[in-house]
Amino acid sequence: VLTESADRAAYEADWRKLYANPALAVALPHTPAQVSALVRLCAAHGIAIVPQGGNTGLVAGGVPVAGTPQLILSLARMNRILALDPQGDTITVQAGVTLQAVQEAAAAADKLFPVSFGAEGTAQIGGVISTNAGGVQVLSYGTLRAQVLGLEVVLADGRIWDGLRALRKDNTGLDLKQIFIGAEGTLGVITAACLKLSPSLNARATALIGVCGPEAALTLFQSLRAQSGSGLTLCEYISGPAMALANAPPPFAAPAYVLAELSAHDATADVTTALESALAAALDSGTATHAVLAQSHRERTALIALRESVPEGELATGGAIKHDIAVPLAAIPATLAAIEALFAEKYPTTRLNIFGHIGDGNLHVNVRPPAGKTLAALAAQKSAITQAIESLAVARGGSFSAEHGIGQIRLPGMSAHKSTVELDLMRAIKTALDPQNLLNPGKMIPPKES
Amino acid sequence: VLTESADRAAYEADWRKLYANPALAVALPHTPAQVSALVRLCAAHGIAIVPQGGNTGLVAGGVPVAGTPQLILSLARMNRILALDPQGDTITVQAGVTLQAVQEAAAAADKLFPVSFGAEGTAQIGGVISTNAGGVQVLSYGTLRAQVLGLEVVLADGRIWDGLRALRKDNTGLDLKQIFIGAEGTLGVITAACLKLSPSLNARATALIGVCGPEAALTLFQSLRAQSGSGLTLCEYISGPAMALANAPPPFAAPAYVLAELSAHDATADVTTALESALAAALDSGTATHAVLAQSHRERTALIALRESVPEGELATGGAIKHDIAVPLAAIPATLAAIEALFAEKYPTTRLNIFGHIGDGNLHVNVRPPAGKTLAALAAQKSAITQAIESLAVARGGSFSAEHGIGQIRLPGMSAHKSTVELDLMRAIKTALDPQNLLNPGKMIPPKES
Repeated sequence: VLTESADRAAYEADWRKLYANPALAVALPHTPAQVSALVRLCAAHGIAIVPQGGNTGLVAGGVPVAGTPQLILSLARMNRILALDPQGDTITVQAGVTLQAVQEAAAAADKLFPVSFGAEGTAQIGGVISTNAGGVQVLSYGTLRAQVLGLEVVLADGRIWDGLRALRKDNTGLDLKQIFIGAEGTLGVITAACLKLSPSLNARATALIGVCGPEAALTLFQSLRAQSGSGLTLCEYISGPAMALANAPPPFAAPAYVLAELSAHDATADVTTALESALAAALDSGTATHAVLAQSHRERTALIALRESVPEGELATGGAIKHDIAVPLAAIPATLAAIEALFAEKYPTTRLNIFGHIGDGNLHVNVRPPAGKTLAALAAQKSAITQAIESLAVARGGSFSAEHGIGQIRLPGMSAHKSTVELDLMRAIKTALDPQNLLNPGKMIPPKES
Repeated sequence: VLTESADRAAYEADWRKLYANPALAVALPHTPAQVSALVRLCAAHGIAIVPQGGNTGLVAGGVPVAGTPQLILSLARMNRILALDPQGDTITVQAGVTLQAVQEAAAAADKLFPVSFGAEGTAQIGGVISTNAGGVQVLSYGTLRAQVLGLEVVLADGRIWDGLRALRKDNTGLDLKQIFIGAEGTLGVITAACLKLSPSLNARATALIGVCGPEAALTLFQSLRAQSGSGLTLCEYISGPAMALANAPPPFAAPAYVLAELSAHDATADVTTALESALAAALDSGTATHAVLAQSHRERTALIALRESVPEGELATGGAIKHDIAVPLAAIPATLAAIEALFAEKYPTTRLNIFGHIGDGNLHVNVRPPAGKTLAALAAQKSAITQAIESLAVARGGSFSAEHGIGQIRLPGMSAHKSTVELDLMRAIKTALDPQNLLNPGKMIPPKES
C-alpha cells in the first residue's frame, strides 16, 4: 500500500496528465482474495475504489474524481499467465498482465491474440476488457468483447464470482461476463480472464494506397472486404494532414492514404497476388491514385509505423482535442464533409487531424491548435468543438465514443446523446450490482438530474 | 387476440408437445407501440407475459408455465424487413422475421447472414437472439450474439428502449443489448434488431471423412483450423450410431464421421486443393480412414443432409432424452469415454446418439430408449440420466447447455451447477429490470431456495 504523496502521484494522474485528483492510498494486491478483502474493507468504511490497469486510457476512467475518498486499486502485481491451452485455443491470465505479454505468450505457442494498439506494452488485460478496447484488428476479429470467454470478478460486496470458463458456447442463464466487459470498473473488479486465441497468421501482404479522400477509401475497403472477408486484417485511413505528422515521409504524396493488409494462416497462401490484383483494379478504375506494396518485413514495418506514429506526432506538435466517432460506413464521407465545412466556417485556424479504422466506421477526428499555438489556445472553445463533432456523428446514427469509452471526459456526451430510458437502464444495473456506488464513482454514467 | 382454447393450443405447447400449459390468451401485435401497450396492461393487472417467436426451442422457454395467469405475446406478425445497408453490411428486421427470411434477404444482396440450423424456416429472429442460438457456423462466425449490432426492446414497465444502432464499435456506457441477448425474454421483449452481414461465400469444398472416434476427429479439426482459420466454415462430428439415423446410407462405413467444409469469398480461391491436401495428409497419418469430396452442388447437399437429418431420424425412431453439453476441446475424448463407460455399466440397453459441433466443443449426447421401446420406457431414469451427463461435462469445466438455453427444462441444472454468487447476480439483474417478475416467469433462473 502506497500512502506517500510522491508514491501515489504516478497513479493519480492519467497518462496525458490532464486529470489528477488525490487518492487516500494506492493498493497493489497480489491475489483475488486480497482484492476481495480490500473491497470489503472499503465497503465497510464507505471508501470508493478506483480499479487501475496500465493507466493508458484516454478518457480518465482509471484515475480518481474530485470530492470522494478513494482508494486506487492497481492490478499491476497480478501479472501471471495462469494457463495456455493450445488444443482449446485459450489463454487464462491475471488482470495485470499486459496486452503485449498476452500477444507474446500466444505467439510462443504459434497462436495469435488478435488485439493490437499503440499502448499494448503498458495496457493491462483487466483494463482493456473493462474498456472493451478496439485497435487495428477489430475489422477481422472484433473488439475485446469478442475475445473473452470467461472472467473472474470481485463484486461490490467483496464476493468473488468465478466465471473463468474456457468454453466457446455456454447458454446457461444470463451471460454475466458481458455485463462486466466495457463497464469501466463500475460494476466489479476484473481479476482474471480466459481469452480466445486464433490460429497464427503466416502469410501477409501489406500496401499503402493513395486515394482522393474518404469516399474512395471506402470504395477500396469494400472491394477488398468483398474479396477477402476476414482475410482483410488491416484497413486504416490516414488523411493527408495526418500523414504529415507521421515519423517519416510517405513513399508518395496523395490527398489521403489507406493502409491495407491481407493475411492468411496457411504460409503458402498467395495473398500478395490477391492484393496486387485488387490494387491493379483500383488503379484502373481511378479509386486509387498510387499503391506501394511492402517487399520485405522491414518495408512492412515502415509502412505500419507511418500509421502508428500519427498520434505521437500529434502529441509532439502541441497535441489535440481528441474525438473517437463512429458512423455507419455509408455515412463516413458526408460526416467528414460536414465536419470540414463546420471547421472552415467556425474554427478556420484550427487544424483537423483525421485518421482511423475506416472499415469499422471509426475515425479519430482530432482538432489541433492553430500553427504556433499550444492546446491552451483552444481552452475556451474546447467543449463547443467536442459537442459539435459528437452531434454531427450522432445525428447520422453514429457514436460519440467508438472505442475509448466514457470515463470522466465523455460524461457530457452521455447526458447530451443518450435517452432517458437508456440511462435509466444503466443506472438500474449499476444500483443492482453496486448499491453503495463504491466502484469507480463519477465514471461512465452521469448522475441523474434532479 | 386469440382467446378460444382451440386457437391457443398451437401456441401453448412446445414443438415437441412435451410441455403445455394454458394461457389466458394469445396476442399478436403488429407494432412496438402495441407490444408496449400490452405490457403496460399486463403490468397493471399482474398478468405475466410469455414472449414467443417461432416456438422451435428445445427447452420450453417460449410456452407458459403452470400456476400463473399468462398472456402469450407472439411476435409472428411483426415480420417486416426494415432496412438492408449493403455498404455498412447490416440488416434491420422486426422480431418476427424468420431466420431463413433474413438469410434470403442477405443472399439477394450478395451477402451472407451466417447463422444456420435445422429450424431456420420457422425460428424467428427475436427468439434466436433471446436464446443466443448457435448452429453449424458458430465455428467461423460465432453465435447469434456476435451478429447483433442493435436492438429495440419493450421493457417490463412498457417503455421502449430504442437501441437499434448499426455500428461496429460503440463504447458509450454499458452495452445494454448484451443483457437482452440470450435472456430468454425474461428481461424485455425484443421487437426489432439490427444484424451484421458478412461477405458472401463463393467458393466451397465439402468432404465427409471417416475417423476412428472423437480423438481423431479432434486432430483433424485442429489441422484444418490451423491451416484455414475462419475459412473452415463447417466441422461436424457424427458418431457411427448417429449416422445410422441419417436419411441415407453414408458413402462408406466408418466408426465415426466428420463433415468439413472450407469456404472463401473469392470465387477463384482454390479451396478444393487446400482441402484435398489436408485430407491426403490426414489419410497418410492415419487420422482419417476414408474421405469423400463432394464433386457437385448436389453431392454437397447430400453430404450435408446426412448430418442435418440425424435429429429427424432420432425423432422418427422413438425420440431421445436430449443433451447439449460443451467442454474445452481437449476434454472431449475423455468426457465421451466417461459417458460411454457410465452407460455401458448403468444403462446398457439405452442407445447413445452423439453428434454435433466438435470445433466448438459442443456435442449433443442424446439417449435413445432400448430397441423396440418408446421414450416412456426411460421416464423413471430420465432425471438421473440427465444429471449424470450434465455432471460429467461440468466436472471437466464444461457447460450443461451450450446452445439450447435453460427455459423450463434445464432449471434443475441451474440449481445443481451454478454457484450462489452467480445465481444471485442473475437474480439482482432480473429484479432490477423486472421487479414484478412479469416477463416469462419460471424460466432460466431457478427460484431462490428458502
